[in-house]
Amino acid sequence: MAKTGITPRAEDYSQWYLDIVREAGMAENSGVRGCMVIKPHGYAVWELIQSAMDRRIKQTGHTNAYFPLLIPKSFLMKEAEHVEGFAPEVAEVTRAGGEDLAEPYVIRPTSETIIGDTFARWINSWRDLPLLINQWANVMRWELRTRPFLRTSEFLWQEGHTAHATEEDAERETLMILHDVYADVVERVMAIPVLRGLKTEREKFAGALRTYAIEAMMQDGRALQAGTSHNLGQNFARSFEIKYTTQDNREEYCWTTSWGTSTRLVGALIMAHSDDDGLVLPPMVAPVQVVVVPIYKNDDEKRRVMEAAASLTKGWDDLFRWKLDAREHLSPGFKFNEWEVKGVPVRVEVGPKDIDKGTVALSRRDRPGREGKSFVEQQGLSERISTLLADIQQALYDRALKFRDERTFTVNSYDEFKAKVEEGFVRGYWDGTNEDEDRVKADTKATVRVIPFEQPEEEGTCFLTGRKTNRRVIFARSY
Amino acid sequence: MAKTGITPRAEDYSQWYLDIVREAGMAENSGVRGCMVIKPHGYAVWELIQSAMDRRIKQTGHTNAYFPLLIPKSFLMKEAEHVEGFAPEVAEVTRAGGEDLAEPYVIRPTSETIIGDTFARWINSWRDLPLLINQWANVMRWELRTRPFLRTSEFLWQEGHTAHATEEDAERETLMILHDVYADVVERVMAIPVLRGLKTEREKFAGALRTYAIEAMMQDGRALQAGTSHNLGQNFARSFEIKYTTQDNREEYCWTTSWGTSTRLVGALIMAHSDDDGLVLPPMVAPVQVVVVPIYKNDDEKRRVMEAAASLTKGWDDLFRWKLDAREHLSPGFKFNEWEVKGVPVRVEVGPKDIDKGTVALSRRDRPGREGKSFVEQQGLSERISTLLADIQQALYDRALKFRDERTFTVNSYDEFKAKVEEGFVRGYWDGTNEDEDRVKADTKATVRVIPFEQPEEEGTCFLTGRKTNRRVIFARSY
Repeated sequence: MAKTGITPRAEDYSQWYLDIVREAGMAENSGVRGCMVIKPHGYAVWELIQSAMDRRIKQTGHTNAYFPLLIPKSFLMKEAEHVEGFAPEVAEVTRAGGEDLAEPYVIRPTSETIIGDTFARWINSWRDLPLLINQWANVMRWELRTRPFLRTSEFLWQEGHTAHATEEDAERETLMILHDVYADVVERVMAIPVLRGLKTEREKFAGALRTYAIEAMMQDGRALQAGTSHNLGQNFARSFEIKYTTQDNREEYCWTTSWGTSTRLVGALIMAHSDDDGLVLPPMVAPVQVVVVPIYKNDDEKRRVMEAAASLTKGWDDLFRWKLDAREHLSPGFKFNEWEVKGVPVRVEVGPKDIDKGTVALSRRDRPGREGKSFVEQQGLSERISTLLADIQQALYDRALKFRDERTFTVNSYDEFKAKVEEGFVRGYWDGTNEDEDRVKADTKATVRVIPFEQPEEEGTCFLTGRKTNRRVIFARSY
Repeated sequence: MAKTGITPRAEDYSQWYLDIVREAGMAENSGVRGCMVIKPHGYAVWELIQSAMDRRIKQTGHTNAYFPLLIPKSFLMKEAEHVEGFAPEVAEVTRAGGEDLAEPYVIRPTSETIIGDTFARWINSWRDLPLLINQWANVMRWELRTRPFLRTSEFLWQEGHTAHATEEDAERETLMILHDVYADVVERVMAIPVLRGLKTEREKFAGALRTYAIEAMMQDGRALQAGTSHNLGQNFARSFEIKYTTQDNREEYCWTTSWGTSTRLVGALIMAHSDDDGLVLPPMVAPVQVVVVPIYKNDDEKRRVMEAAASLTKGWDDLFRWKLDAREHLSPGFKFNEWEVKGVPVRVEVGPKDIDKGTVALSRRDRPGREGKSFVEQQGLSERISTLLADIQQALYDRALKFRDERTFTVNSYDEFKAKVEEGFVRGYWDGTNEDEDRVKADTKATVRVIPFEQPEEEGTCFLTGRKTNRRVIFARSY
């Protein structure tokens, strides 16, 4: 174990993750089974992800609304596949105001049903379409084995719900959200490359026609589903009587979609970029992007250093999220370590010698130690830091992409598959049945993550069945 | 009933409120008893209030975090007064994941207990203090009689929770929140004047040492409690063992505070400013501040008008939240009415005659009809609208303040009290007991809203008991 109290990745990846969550002050367990407390640093990261997501959701024409936390149990039971998928994991409210309830409520595991009930009232004519709604909310799925951010009984998320006049409109919406909102936030803001594609029947959302997903690779080679977008067809519209009158006065069922991303993204962020020294944050989601640590030995030095720091950081409020760490009772070394563990992208040190030379020491978190440290002129420091932050953002993305490419293997046989799936993503021709998927999962714990949009032109041989097929899929073990 | 489907205030104030909520698209009832759906327009108003509140909460040194929705029932039972206040109105989760739970959970009615349990782990030494945390969350109190925004079983709110080393620090925090955060948002952003003061023992928060509140007057003369800030003393610290080590190494209980504002503020906003034509929104919380309605009769006029509108509104994205209402199938009159009902502060009409004359018609929502309409030069329109928005913001505040002053009465006897309390706020010397307060409530439905911070220097006579006292209070009927 390193000085920070963080188990190295190579030793125990799973413990490394828990150590980072704890040491960086991201979250902790609570007195409620399976529910975490999201601590200030973790919540600040979530707020930045949320704000990037919310901006794109609004820019693409959606408005936010809010629907009840509780759902009458009968609503959940209306769509056959949906109830089968969610009924086993709901929490039920059976008493309220000191009395037993005639009909129990469930705490929403997702809101298709209560929103479907509402949409049926809101939609009358084709003029009411498309209806484009998003909700930021907490949801609850009673999970047996939980891990902070990745799998918790309660989590925070956004869930989009839309209704359309035609199947094409619904399909276009489903894909637009996947590409322009979800992949865009995860790749550009969180600096994590994602694979995009369709889910198999076995992996799709309970009640959907088709589910699309973005999948990211974590540093142990496992996949993390970072967002899903569902074309619900007319399934929920039929169950909840969501109908509209067409321009030529016919009555039709709407085509609906739903799509969600959650606090799970914070877990993805931690696992994609961090190292054995602690959290590593892309600048765009770093609550503090630049920390300034003053270095001095006596009151005179302190006065000079603090003056220099004040002058250097003038105007920074408009440029960065930054902090001057002026805490008296802590050594510079302690502070360096603390900000490193918390993932602050850039550290500036100012000491008496720097003042004499007109320089500062600049360290980038993504390259720990000497490699990432340089001594630069005070002149032009703000511009240099702006450039550095952009560099770090790009470097983290590039590193994650390189890592994923190196850990993505193409296989032609099941033996090859079984060897490679221990290490990362496996790409292969696939013509298996649902039962074949189950068998692969039982053998290797791997599932089809996506059927990518880009498919080969030439036929190939399914690595399991040996049948000819045009379809190539990505398998991986996943979170 | 007016053309808008809104019952006039004078006829039935309570129905007027419900009509505005419905016609302006703010909220509606759901299939869940006592829980509303907050519709897009209502939610957008809430987001603006929320963002003004969040900014101030952060500027005053607090950070956001998130705590579990569910609270072990045993936590709720730990503080004697608290359990008495909240136990009767909680919703209980007794089953989850298909099994009966050994210990039931309650859905948080407020989070002092779960956060108290957490603070006990987070705080060790005086260096950890003050601990300044805020949470945005949904809470649930099982209410019998509900009204959208004003009283719903589920509502959205922020709850601040802080811990301090001394009683003075906790008291300073409690008052700072009341003045610099709550009163500031409600007065400056929502344009509603508030009275500030202390709650009586009978009206204070269950478990608090002292509760402070801001109270606003609605247009029927009734009071609405718009925010409360509680000095919890050491009550919760003792129940949850929130202790710290002092600088001289003694172990002490912390002094804690909590404070909250909720979606109730949206109800206050509606009732403070709106009129018989619909919602009236102060510009700072208007999702759309300016709407432009093009007026034309044929394609040629349409082309000219749309071109003029495009040129007039250039650069507006940086200045206002605005919308061009280009819907084809609706008449200008229909559009005027719709935006009026939704409370948009400024309407701009552009027609062919305006283009010829280089003018536009400008209407302000707070002065309906001819009085608020003027024809102004296109030249300098943006600046004029900026000024107009600031004017409207101030005018709404001034009007609400004048209304409150005219409806606030000073009384010297119980007979006078009983007559005046039908009309508004009543100020009077008060030396009654808890039982006297109950009696006044039983007689008149009025309660002590606040004991104002400003108290008279000279003694007076309690209007009920006839005893001499220095204390003057404000009574009113309330929401």
